Amino acid sequence: MSNAPPPVLTIHPLAGLPEVLPGDDLAALLCDSAARAGLALAAGDVLVVAQKVVSKAEGARIALAGVTPSQRAREWAGQWGKDPRQVEVVLRESKRILRMERGILIAETRHGFVCANAGVDLSNSGGEDIAILLPEDPDRSAGLLRDAIRRRTGVDTGVIVADSFGRPWRQGLTQAALGVAGLAPLLDLRGERDTEGRPMHVTVIAVADELACAADLACGKTRRIPAAVIRGYSGPARDGNGRELLRPEKEDLFR
Amino acid sequence: MSNAPPPVLTIHPLAGLPEVLPGDDLAALLCDSAARAGLALAAGDVLVVAQKVVSKAEGARIALAGVTPSQRAREWAGQWGKDPRQVEVVLRESKRILRMERGILIAETRHGFVCANAGVDLSNSGGEDIAILLPEDPDRSAGLLRDAIRRRTGVDTGVIVADSFGRPWRQGLTQAALGVAGLAPLLDLRGERDTEGRPMHVTVIAVADELACAADLACGKTRRIPAAVIRGYSGPARDGNGRELLRPEKEDLFR
Repeated sequence: MSNAPPPVLTIHPLAGLPEVLPGDDLAALLCDSAARAGLALAAGDVLVVAQKVVSKAEGARIALAGVTPSQRAREWAGQWGKDPRQVEVVLRESKRILRMERGILIAETRHGFVCANAGVDLSNSGGEDIAILLPEDPDRSAGLLRDAIRRRTGVDTGVIVADSFGRPWRQGLTQAALGVAGLAPLLDLRGERDTEGRPMHVTVIAVADELACAADLACGKTRRIPAAVIRGYSGPARDGNGRELLRPEKEDLFR
Repeated sequence: MSNAPPPVLTIHPLAGLPEVLPGDDLAALLCDSAARAGLALAAGDVLVVAQKVVSKAEGARIALAGVTPSQRAREWAGQWGKDPRQVEVVLRESKRILRMERGILIAETRHGFVCANAGVDLSNSGGEDIAILLPEDPDRSAGLLRDAIRRRTGVDTGVIVADSFGRPWRQGLTQAALGVAGLAPLLDLRGERDTEGRPMHVTVIAVADELACAADLACGKTRRIPAAVIRGYSGPARDGNGRELLRPEKEDLFR
């Protein structure tokens, strides 16, 4: 082991993006924001981007005016004071409903994410009665952003597309990495031994989720900052994807 | 709103602590480590400390040699190749067992945390057959550390005592804030409106968990760094505690 002091990490918010519209070049908007902040992207930087702006750029949205709610959506929406068209979209985006009670709908999305409302969101959606969906393939979204940033800047960055998810047992939302490119989402220490030589057998760290959480701290209290760059993080030298963060159903004790 | 650029956050690992022993002055060890790194603690810094060193300094440990396992502990340990004395300690630390299957024991601790093995840990425990327990009262631990740091440095820091917890549905561990002092663990945006004036109704962010996750990124791949200082985080001007992060059972859909 080297005796060099461990590096300091820095988290740089990327502010000042305009309202993102379908077809926008999100990589260009993010690189412009970094340039305005005096930040030249460097190899190894990890760019964390909010799912919502990725979805907006990709046009992953649906106008509620064109949605005809099913009877199930109408009944549940009526019972809990929801918009039945929004509930219909949530049901369509779901592979399975885990809980549907007390006005809360926890779903497993088509991708395999377990979250409230299947990730369908009406706030800050860019228009009245527009629902923003999760990206169709968040790993592909992350990979395309990474490619576009490399073309613009010449450097290889890690990219994480992140969203805020609730958790059982604990209050409040934290960030989850949905799509990952250019970095390993899991740090697997299972081959390692602790300082006393005892195997550290259940130690796999979800570093991509931790990176997404770290980036969220830079968003500030007004939450108008959709991305941040983390510099100084040194993870495993392996690329991976966000699907690695999904626990297989057969290994999940709570599904 | 000000037009000042949003601040950059920095995460400073605190390395080089000796093996922590019962009765050690952990605040002194952490302040010494910061000094060696050239870091003068400043008001508003958030110090995140691994639960394990807090427990070690507090003597929250038990020698397995003195533990007589119950029949339930012996049966389950035998079935899954565990140490029956360790299983016995886990059962004693638990208020309730949520899952006990496939060799995995998910418990609600006396404090109300839901985690594997009720937080009882044999790795890096500082001795053969020593189990480290969670601190008796992590909020008190955080508060005492905060007081001791103030006495040493004259500055008010936030303090988080953190541990790595698994989650349902997702692979890998992330950090959870067990004890909190000198900062608000939740950022409540429910009174806020989004940029289109629509209420952001389910938006409460578990910032203390996100801070703990951010600090974990500074631990490096060898995991020998038990604490980090986060600088530049600006949260709500309110003190809180780690108990706020525990979802009441009646509001929990997965218990």
